[in-house]
Amino acid sequence: MRRTAVIDVGSNTAKLVDYAFEPGVSFRRVDELRANVRLAEGMGPDGVLRAEPFERGIAALRTFASYCRAVEIDDVVATATSAVRGAANGDAFVAAARERAGIELRVLDGAAEARVAALAVANATTVRDATVVDLGGGSVQLSRLRARRFLAGESWPLGAVRSTETFLRGDPPKAKGVRALARAAREAVAPWFERSEDEPGRTLVGLGGTLRNLADVDQQRRGYPLDLLHGYRLSAGALHALTDDLVRMKASQRADLPGLNRDRADIIAAGAVVWSEVVRSSGFDELLVSGQGLRDGLFYPRLVPGGEHLLDDVRAFSVRNLLRQHQVESAHDQHVRAVAWQLFDQTAPLHAFGAWERDLLGAAALLHDIGMAIDAYRHDHHGKTLVLGRALPGFEHREQALIALLVRFHRKGQVGDEGLGSVLAADDLARVRALAGMLRVAEHLDRGKAQRVRGVEVHLGDGLVQIVALGDGDARLEVEMARERSDLLASGLGATVEVVAGVAREVAR
Amino acid sequence: MRRTAVIDVGSNTAKLVDYAFEPGVSFRRVDELRANVRLAEGMGPDGVLRAEPFERGIAALRTFASYCRAVEIDDVVATATSAVRGAANGDAFVAAARERAGIELRVLDGAAEARVAALAVANATTVRDATVVDLGGGSVQLSRLRARRFLAGESWPLGAVRSTETFLRGDPPKAKGVRALARAAREAVAPWFERSEDEPGRTLVGLGGTLRNLADVDQQRRGYPLDLLHGYRLSAGALHALTDDLVRMKASQRADLPGLNRDRADIIAAGAVVWSEVVRSSGFDELLVSGQGLRDGLFYPRLVPGGEHLLDDVRAFSVRNLLRQHQVESAHDQHVRAVAWQLFDQTAPLHAFGAWERDLLGAAALLHDIGMAIDAYRHDHHGKTLVLGRALPGFEHREQALIALLVRFHRKGQVGDEGLGSVLAADDLARVRALAGMLRVAEHLDRGKAQRVRGVEVHLGDGLVQIVALGDGDARLEVEMARERSDLLASGLGATVEVVAGVAREVAR
Repeated sequence: MRRTAVIDVGSNTAKLVDYAFEPGVSFRRVDELRANVRLAEGMGPDGVLRAEPFERGIAALRTFASYCRAVEIDDVVATATSAVRGAANGDAFVAAARERAGIELRVLDGAAEARVAALAVANATTVRDATVVDLGGGSVQLSRLRARRFLAGESWPLGAVRSTETFLRGDPPKAKGVRALARAAREAVAPWFERSEDEPGRTLVGLGGTLRNLADVDQQRRGYPLDLLHGYRLSAGALHALTDDLVRMKASQRADLPGLNRDRADIIAAGAVVWSEVVRSSGFDELLVSGQGLRDGLFYPRLVPGGEHLLDDVRAFSVRNLLRQHQVESAHDQHVRAVAWQLFDQTAPLHAFGAWERDLLGAAALLHDIGMAIDAYRHDHHGKTLVLGRALPGFEHREQALIALLVRFHRKGQVGDEGLGSVLAADDLARVRALAGMLRVAEHLDRGKAQRVRGVEVHLGDGLVQIVALGDGDARLEVEMARERSDLLASGLGATVEVVAGVAREVAR
Repeated sequence: MRRTAVIDVGSNTAKLVDYAFEPGVSFRRVDELRANVRLAEGMGPDGVLRAEPFERGIAALRTFASYCRAVEIDDVVATATSAVRGAANGDAFVAAARERAGIELRVLDGAAEARVAALAVANATTVRDATVVDLGGGSVQLSRLRARRFLAGESWPLGAVRSTETFLRGDPPKAKGVRALARAAREAVAPWFERSEDEPGRTLVGLGGTLRNLADVDQQRRGYPLDLLHGYRLSAGALHALTDDLVRMKASQRADLPGLNRDRADIIAAGAVVWSEVVRSSGFDELLVSGQGLRDGLFYPRLVPGGEHLLDDVRAFSVRNLLRQHQVESAHDQHVRAVAWQLFDQTAPLHAFGAWERDLLGAAALLHDIGMAIDAYRHDHHGKTLVLGRALPGFEHREQALIALLVRFHRKGQVGDEGLGSVLAADDLARVRALAGMLRVAEHLDRGKAQRVRGVEVHLGDGLVQIVALGDGDARLEVEMARERSDLLASGLGATVEVVAGVAREVAR
């Protein structure tokens, strides 16, 4: 495994993300360091980084550098964005970073920053055409993604720290300042959306710490059942309502809001106002939250070294990546997927499922034993925990919940929603019953993990599904277990299910 | 990693447990296969294994053998217990296993079986002197453990399958048969407990699938907050009440009981009756459930090759084993433990804690980052999940819950019981506040993971705890972060906490 640290000095925070990865194969975030440097604090119209924030920034970088030495990072990618870019003494900060922390900062211009963020979105979602909005401490950036590539972008100095300092006075902020900020945001971004009206099929994707915090607060308010931010769809209405609340609160009240990072309590109101106006101007009724952003965009060229650094298939990569993280890939999983798909395809006349369900079944089949990473005992429950434990980029939350339920019920148990009902559609439990039924039969047909049942042949009769297990004639235990565990498939398909051995029928009887 | 499969053919089930391990270092159960062979079924007074159960047993062994080949098991330890031992045609079964499945079964006599189970108990608990009761399908075994060694044992043919066949008729079973079985069990084991009355300091430890199922049903009834069986303390009263219920139910009703394995629905009533009588005769008011038993006892000589195959320190091994399972051991964890212990020791005048709390703090410090195995984001929450995800042998459930809470709150958050209140004592949350407060300061003092703060010196004043971070003078970020996160320690100790840099005080100010 290689280790790359990506460091990014923003206007509000300096962050380090430590990635462990094998190029082209897998990666994970090992750790994150975050320092609340507020580099842009008090910068004012002369554009000079003040002495205190300057020193805080360098102190953070010295800590990051010592971290990189201590954990044996192979290479460091370090960048600075709007605060340093826009500062009269930005060069002095870059020089101090080099001389006092040994870190070579690359100052990204607005276009480069947007391009990097767009790469993160292209590799962390299945979105092809979108408007990507990134709101940081210093600036807000809009860019257009077409066929997964960055097309064009624009940036305005309306980040959360800068907007707070420029527009909001008082605690709670005065209404006049809030209105002025809203107007400034509207006037900045509205023309951008008017120009892009002819671009069809777009999504509005949002990035940055302010948005992650807003999404988190919204999830807490709703009692959202998943602990996942990446892929969350924040509705425009919820965003506006939350913004209205935030601007009326004192910073101390905001600090106590469940889901809100206390360090952001003073700047979140301004950030929310800008977000709210961006979404209003866009005409979209929801915002897709990306938990990946600039730092991940800086990392992807390491993970995908060639060409445009784009993953071929984001969803397939996510599933494989999760398996590799927990080191539980096996031939058994591949085999169970193949047999589950045979059952799916050959029972097609009995179900109304299409490519979408087939894909989810395949993902769940590969992941069905992932809970073994915690313990063999109750690994079906642990599997659900691990599937929902972190983002599965490229999958909607509803899809991730469905996969988690298929994993949960691959072995046994009465199908229920396991508390995930509010992210599911009305007919999803019926879907889970049929698909988990297939998975369960496929799993037990390879219970001995030796692929002795090589495949199945399904005969459909009058209300009857006969599954012939084609094997080497010695898979008696597997056939018996599959038979014992075929009830769920029967209820899912609304038919009687019979499992028989193909080659050596008389032994299995 | 080496791989050993332990196979055990019992009267009720044949099981295979696949262990991955590094001798002396770590192990985990990779998978378990279970076949409901009912080998003793219909055996009757002539003691002959019937044709059907015989073939079921051999079919299971063939599957196990193919599993071992498929997953590349290094060595196989295979045993048979009471059904084969007591059968007139046991030799024929052993020969068939060899010839038709390629598995060499070692038939354990009663004493060997008891000795093996005792080894599992000695390595999976901190119990030194105990009566160990193992109830399987064929027999029930009592043995005495003294100073962690097997001392003596005795066995009776009162296992769950055999008792059912011998005593219980009808569904639900006739009261007369239940009474006869209870009397037989009492008459068998009572003299054993009378003889051992002069042995002080004993615990009653229970093993076997019947007991695990009874414990699981009891947990479901109580709404027990942990998904852990090993280490569970089943009260005598709950066992008697559950037994009374089970003998009054039909098998079909028992099959629907939450927590009960359907395969056992017909034999669990007899098993419960025997357990109930054993506990009554023992005079103990609770039973410590061991999730480890015969198979683990057969495995330990591989893990601990020398001497008596006893782990030196069960608790320390458990903590290290969990870290190694998830491959997250680091110098940082060791350092955080050292600094947390310095805080603990030097604030001793302010708290009433002793060696017990110090030990829990140490375990939590080593485990605090284990959640990184799932994701860096929310790793404090994931850490709680992983600490509670499987048994932590040697720790009481209450202790495991305390460690999980310390891990959960090592980074941030308001301390709460996280739904674990019912396994905690009244003053445990106060304990968590103080200990997590220490852990949180120690963690942030090494937030850069480079051990730049080498240790702490604590000065206690009038209501004031001054923590001097002794470092290389460049740990400004760490000192600041520790200071920002010192509130919990202040509330835990009921004092004002000040964190200052030792060498370069003026920098930190």
